[in-house]
Amino acid sequence: MTDSAVQTDDDLRSLRRDLHRHPEPAWCEFYTTARLIEELRTRPIDELHYGREIHAADQRLNVPDESTRTKWLNRAREAGANGTILDEISESFTGAVAVVDRGPGPTIALRVDIDALPILEADDAGHVPVDEGFRSENEGYMHACGHDAHATIGLGVLDQILDSDFSGTFKIIFQPSEEQISGAKPMAESGIIDDVDHLLALHIGLDHPSGQVVAGIDDFLAVTQFRVDFSGESAHAGARPESGANAVQAMAAAVQNLYGIPRHSAGETRVNAGHVGGGTADNIVPEHAFIKGEVRGETTELMSYMWDHAQRILDSAAEMHDCTADIQMLGEAPSAESDQQLVDIVGDVARQTAGVDDVLERDSLGGSEDATFLMQHVQNQGGLATYVGVGTDHPGGHHTPTFDVDERDIGIAVDVLSAAIGEIAAADPV
Amino acid sequence: MTDSAVQTDDDLRSLRRDLHRHPEPAWCEFYTTARLIEELRTRPIDELHYGREIHAADQRLNVPDESTRTKWLNRAREAGANGTILDEISESFTGAVAVVDRGPGPTIALRVDIDALPILEADDAGHVPVDEGFRSENEGYMHACGHDAHATIGLGVLDQILDSDFSGTFKIIFQPSEEQISGAKPMAESGIIDDVDHLLALHIGLDHPSGQVVAGIDDFLAVTQFRVDFSGESAHAGARPESGANAVQAMAAAVQNLYGIPRHSAGETRVNAGHVGGGTADNIVPEHAFIKGEVRGETTELMSYMWDHAQRILDSAAEMHDCTADIQMLGEAPSAESDQQLVDIVGDVARQTAGVDDVLERDSLGGSEDATFLMQHVQNQGGLATYVGVGTDHPGGHHTPTFDVDERDIGIAVDVLSAAIGEIAAADPV
Amino acid sequence: MTDSAVQTDDDLRSLRRDLHRHPEPAWCEFYTTARLIEELRTRPIDELHYGREIHAADQRLNVPDESTRTKWLNRAREAGANGTILDEISESFTGAVAVVDRGPGPTIALRVDIDALPILEADDAGHVPVDEGFRSENEGYMHACGHDAHATIGLGVLDQILDSDFSGTFKIIFQPSEEQISGAKPMAESGIIDDVDHLLALHIGLDHPSGQVVAGIDDFLAVTQFRVDFSGESAHAGARPESGANAVQAMAAAVQNLYGIPRHSAGETRVNAGHVGGGTADNIVPEHAFIKGEVRGETTELMSYMWDHAQRILDSAAEMHDCTADIQMLGEAPSAESDQQLVDIVGDVARQTAGVDDVLERDSLGGSEDATFLMQHVQNQGGLATYVGVGTDHPGGHHTPTFDVDERDIGIAVDVLSAAIGEIAAADPV
Amino acid sequence: MTDSAVQTDDDLRSLRRDLHRHPEPAWCEFYTTARLIEELRTRPIDELHYGREIHAADQRLNVPDESTRTKWLNRAREAGANGTILDEISESFTGAVAVVDRGPGPTIALRVDIDALPILEADDAGHVPVDEGFRSENEGYMHACGHDAHATIGLGVLDQILDSDFSGTFKIIFQPSEEQISGAKPMAESGIIDDVDHLLALHIGLDHPSGQVVAGIDDFLAVTQFRVDFSGESAHAGARPESGANAVQAMAAAVQNLYGIPRHSAGETRVNAGHVGGGTADNIVPEHAFIKGEVRGETTELMSYMWDHAQRILDSAAEMHDCTADIQMLGEAPSAESDQQLVDIVGDVARQTAGVDDVLERDSLGGSEDATFLMQHVQNQGGLATYVGVGTDHPGGHHTPTFDVDERDIGIAVDVLSAAIGEIAAADPV
Repeated sequence: MTDSAVQTDDDLRSLRRDLHRHPEPAWCEFYTTARLIEELRTRPIDELHYGREIHAADQRLNVPDESTRTKWLNRAREAGANGTILDEISESFTGAVAVVDRGPGPTIALRVDIDALPILEADDAGHVPVDEGFRSENEGYMHACGHDAHATIGLGVLDQILDSDFSGTFKIIFQPSEEQISGAKPMAESGIIDDVDHLLALHIGLDHPSGQVVAGIDDFLAVTQFRVDFSGESAHAGARPESGANAVQAMAAAVQNLYGIPRHSAGETRVNAGHVGGGTADNIVPEHAFIKGEVRGETTELMSYMWDHAQRILDSAAEMHDCTADIQMLGEAPSAESDQQLVDIVGDVARQTAGVDDVLERDSLGGSEDATFLMQHVQNQGGLATYVGVGTDHPGGHHTPTFDVDERDIGIAVDVLSAAIGEIAAADPV
Repeated sequence: MTDSAVQTDDDLRSLRRDLHRHPEPAWCEFYTTARLIEELRTRPIDELHYGREIHAADQRLNVPDESTRTKWLNRAREAGANGTILDEISESFTGAVAVVDRGPGPTIALRVDIDALPILEADDAGHVPVDEGFRSENEGYMHACGHDAHATIGLGVLDQILDSDFSGTFKIIFQPSEEQISGAKPMAESGIIDDVDHLLALHIGLDHPSGQVVAGIDDFLAVTQFRVDFSGESAHAGARPESGANAVQAMAAAVQNLYGIPRHSAGETRVNAGHVGGGTADNIVPEHAFIKGEVRGETTELMSYMWDHAQRILDSAAEMHDCTADIQMLGEAPSAESDQQLVDIVGDVARQTAGVDDVLERDSLGGSEDATFLMQHVQNQGGLATYVGVGTDHPGGHHTPTFDVDERDIGIAVDVLSAAIGEIAAADPV
Repeated sequence: MTDSAVQTDDDLRSLRRDLHRHPEPAWCEFYTTARLIEELRTRPIDELHYGREIHAADQRLNVPDESTRTKWLNRAREAGANGTILDEISESFTGAVAVVDRGPGPTIALRVDIDALPILEADDAGHVPVDEGFRSENEGYMHACGHDAHATIGLGVLDQILDSDFSGTFKIIFQPSEEQISGAKPMAESGIIDDVDHLLALHIGLDHPSGQVVAGIDDFLAVTQFRVDFSGESAHAGARPESGANAVQAMAAAVQNLYGIPRHSAGETRVNAGHVGGGTADNIVPEHAFIKGEVRGETTELMSYMWDHAQRILDSAAEMHDCTADIQMLGEAPSAESDQQLVDIVGDVARQTAGVDDVLERDSLGGSEDATFLMQHVQNQGGLATYVGVGTDHPGGHHTPTFDVDERDIGIAVDVLSAAIGEIAAADPV
Repeated sequence: MTDSAVQTDDDLRSLRRDLHRHPEPAWCEFYTTARLIEELRTRPIDELHYGREIHAADQRLNVPDESTRTKWLNRAREAGANGTILDEISESFTGAVAVVDRGPGPTIALRVDIDALPILEADDAGHVPVDEGFRSENEGYMHACGHDAHATIGLGVLDQILDSDFSGTFKIIFQPSEEQISGAKPMAESGIIDDVDHLLALHIGLDHPSGQVVAGIDDFLAVTQFRVDFSGESAHAGARPESGANAVQAMAAAVQNLYGIPRHSAGETRVNAGHVGGGTADNIVPEHAFIKGEVRGETTELMSYMWDHAQRILDSAAEMHDCTADIQMLGEAPSAESDQQLVDIVGDVARQTAGVDDVLERDSLGGSEDATFLMQHVQNQGGLATYVGVGTDHPGGHHTPTFDVDERDIGIAVDVLSAAIGEIAAADPV
């Protein structure tokens, strides 16, 4: 196992660095998708799916407008992406699914996410992508959460499965728009995981050092992200204040009261009005204001409790100031838990993997992740799921300009996951 | 004219002091009404109206509940009021109207108000009612706005008219519930002033010294007084905060936003949440809260602008916190202006009246008064109205425990008003 | 053991019913204290402490004013309380401590609380105190939380200890003002438990049925109860709104923002503005407003976090509207945990006690209790503490008009606690 | 008089169109200033002042940063402005003052403003600057308030004075940054008008048609424009909400309470939070927020009342949420009134001017204007001032993309003002 890992490392490193140079935001992973599809086409896989067929189109949220898509399609084209593929996915049907069918046995899926963040990457010596020449070429965007490594690990696991005596069906799922928690739901609803018996998802880093593996991550906060636009009437603030309907007053009333949603005795809840704005000039009664925010809960029910209250508050704050509120859900994810049977298998395998020197059975995420939609979908139809953490020494925190991964941990992740998939197929614990 | 004034002074003083000893709040003027009716019955008047016939019953606001009425009826009975009259007015149909019909000529009405205030009267030497033994016997209530003098002046004017060669019809209107601005509207709507060509109303004091008369007071702020009750759900604040619907949060959101109703370029507006409360205990999510408040405007339109906004804010503040809002209008009054023709006559007469050494043509009230309903009613049907101010040196301000009137000014008011009514009848300026 | 319990039952029942007839609110337990002291004086105890010596006077919060104290002292006197004792405790130095010194061994204390609640007791047939003639004689006040039973149990345990071969020192602590969470701290700071090695506290009921015992109750929410008075300036809302400093606006701003104190990732927090009020009349800018409220936390640190934020918000809300805020802490209690060694002993003893058919090792309170001050004080000096729950079938919930205890459970509580104290003395687990 | 007007019309039109093509925002009037100075240098004036000497540097508010200045300096240079002058005024010391000294007599000043607005000019046929080829060349900026005409009129009046038998001293003041109400105060404080006996200012349009002149405009609302920046601490809204200090909560509390500043019985007040914003992302506790807003009053005292309250609210809203508030005044202007003596002279002259067919003695501005600083300065030292309105048929409203002036009215304004200055000098009404 160590040998194969070492062997693939060069190709995988090269792929990871290419993806790192071309970070793309949620739903604009055009270069990334095209690159991965071209990689997949060189492998002896049985099925390749992408474009509309892997998404329930009406479940997609927060898809960018055409001018944004065009900008990123052009960048992808200029970076050398396959034009035919780009045309096929141009309406933000990004991501891909590959299937390996190896005779009798369960269907096991691995989900990896592929999108990047609107963060300006560090440009200082000492930051490895600078030192070794693979810093982001899309200025202002960055793989600051390791999804470049995730996509690479996905391909590495596929290769290991192809090389192994695995029996059963394996699906590798490259998911877009995790950062805006809106990519998993349309994939879950598209039917492509309806036959999956076991699902694994993974995250690298998360403050776990290189050599540490977490067999089952839990405590995902269920989340809904939203945007509300308040519309009123503008007026000259000196000459005709009474003619206005002040959208900023509506927004302020909403903010004051959103944070006052009662705490819940059943567990943790959260609310945040993270980005707000309104109005245009000192002397004009503001006609428009907005809030981009989120609510979370320790369980999906707690999140729904918050979301119900939040919507009522937003609507009544608008009404209070004779405005209207247009509320859009930008993204959402339920809570989820990792199943013990898979946690046990992953833990056992990890303990036997070279390079792993510490295995935690469980740990908390304390944040949100939309892999939970896929986990829940599989669990709801009687399957099992786990979310695996693979440690890496990352110099900066996630979502900061100096984030980076130790590329040696890509190999460890590939080894742990491919071995675990083999063991799961053999045991089929459902 | 001087003689008659002097002559009536003793009786009038005695009546005024009796009323002062028995102050009664709005809609509970039982003793006062019975006493006035008994006085009227000793005069050669042509008609006497009281009880239901002088009120449009469905226009009465803020009428106290039965237990409050019973308490005041009992006090009136104990103070020696006529029991038969009390029975006739026991459902708060207080006030009275007397008519003198003296041949051809216009119908002229004088409106005086009769209610007192929930204020504890001063009990110190130097306060004339203490020194001369006519301090309030209804502890906690007080004629702190001079309505005892107003009622007395009304009877004095009636006497002068009866003694004079007045030709026309004269109506004296004793109106209840001015302090809660809810007594004039049901009288105006009852039909009893439908035939009135000229209406005079009066106020004593208002920071005008003895010897000063204002021929026409203007700039009444239109007003609506309201009470809103917010109802939610109680819950244990430690164990089940999420089960509550917090009426105090609704009330606080309402207060914050009521004061933020936009200013109006067409003139002055006001808003006040003057008395609020809610909840029962530190550790219980409040199930109930209330606001007693008011909105005002320089014109009736401006007041309506405020009232429309206020109602919307109260409803949406309730909804915001999953509560309901029960809004009651407690009282209201429009704005009004004094007609120049009557102002001219009153001014001319006043300048010739003994004891008057300064006549102002116009002054501002800067507050509210529901005589405006009667004025507006008369004006709307083509009649004229004026609101007359008669100065008096009052030691304490209106609505304070040391308020008092100089009783000599009662005679001056009688003289000015009865002479003005005679002149109006002679000139009939409509 | 069963014999003695049966034997004491009649006396204890009689005492409990006497206390039930005379419920007294926090810091006004004059009758209760006098009655208990007279009971204690009939026992062969070694020390009796009461009055100033058992309280750190400067640590007392929320002590009622003299007129309230006088009212309750008079009631106690009329109910036949010992006048000399009343004089000694008349400044609300209620409660008592008795000490039994029985040779070598640890010092073990039992704390029981003695105050009642401002709740009107049910007056319907079927409510045992009605049927059997011991309903509250202090109308509007009620032992609705079982402290009458607690005090009785305390005396019962003392009797058992006196009758037993207990070796060591036993202290029974009758604590006032638990309902206002302000009685424990001044006792803890007075020195009277400085020598205590083991502390037990108890509560009856708490939704545990008769026959069930909880060996160690945990998860007390730390709490601070407060009152804030906002003072501004009154003004006529129509004539001079600008002259006011609106205390109701300050209060509303405070309420809106108190509920918005950020949630905390370390655990549960709470905030409540449970009782608010302000202003006097529709048309007066309010000069005064108040909030009675509380903050809580799963730990003392979390409560402090809330309290720090709350105080800053109250001060700045006042300043925002040119008012001042006078903040008083009304009561407080830290969080606490029961020590395993004592939990084990209580559990073992309970399982062997007649009438006990179910023993829970641990349960959560989910509320607040100021016994935690005493527990923490003992634990801080190296001692151990546990908070024991003794079930009883109570028809109405705690703090409701139909609450009552099954008196047979008083005997069970006496047996469990006295046996546990014996075992603790024998084992001395520190 | 008619002749000279006709004569200058061609040059003036040409100047006005050149200025119109080069609109520059407040404090960036580099091209405009250089162009005017070059014009002045061709005239036989006695003194020319510009640069630092005409501004009290420490009284300048809202001066743009160096990069903005550099951008506009470069544009001016590219448009052919005199480089030497640009260097002299490069730190935003824009504007100019020219003096004509013609023997004995009073010192009379005319103030015209020269800045433009950040408005995109209409580009449709029918908009005269489009049809006749002088549309703005600084895309996104526009002379949408007629200051291009004002500057031109100023030069026209200077020419008329130079051509006339005027006796006394005349100062023409070209003032920058009127639109940000921050250019007049530093000029007033610089000393350049300390010797002025009579000041005239003017505005074209203001919904007055061509041929109408207003001899004295009044009712300027005193105004203060401000920006407040709230600074707190960011934190992950899901993982560590308690670590944040939420600047958006501070901003919302400020907005809610700013609008609630009590109305004032002495007259109209205004407040507006016209442009707000804060935060960066849904899931981050906002570290920063801002409000750009304004307060106004019918008098300077009323504006100060509002400004005092506003500052206290901003500071305490910040403190409430553990943030800081950095408050900057962006601009301000007092109220002012036109003096009757000058109003009379301007009215008389206007009635005799060809092209003027309607003269209003007085009208209200209903907005704000910082010429009031200069008016007040002159009046405070015993001089007189008036603010003259010259009508023009303007197709779009002020501050809209289709605003334009009828150039014939430039000549009328020149005639009225130069004649009035002559009459004032002759009468010297101080």
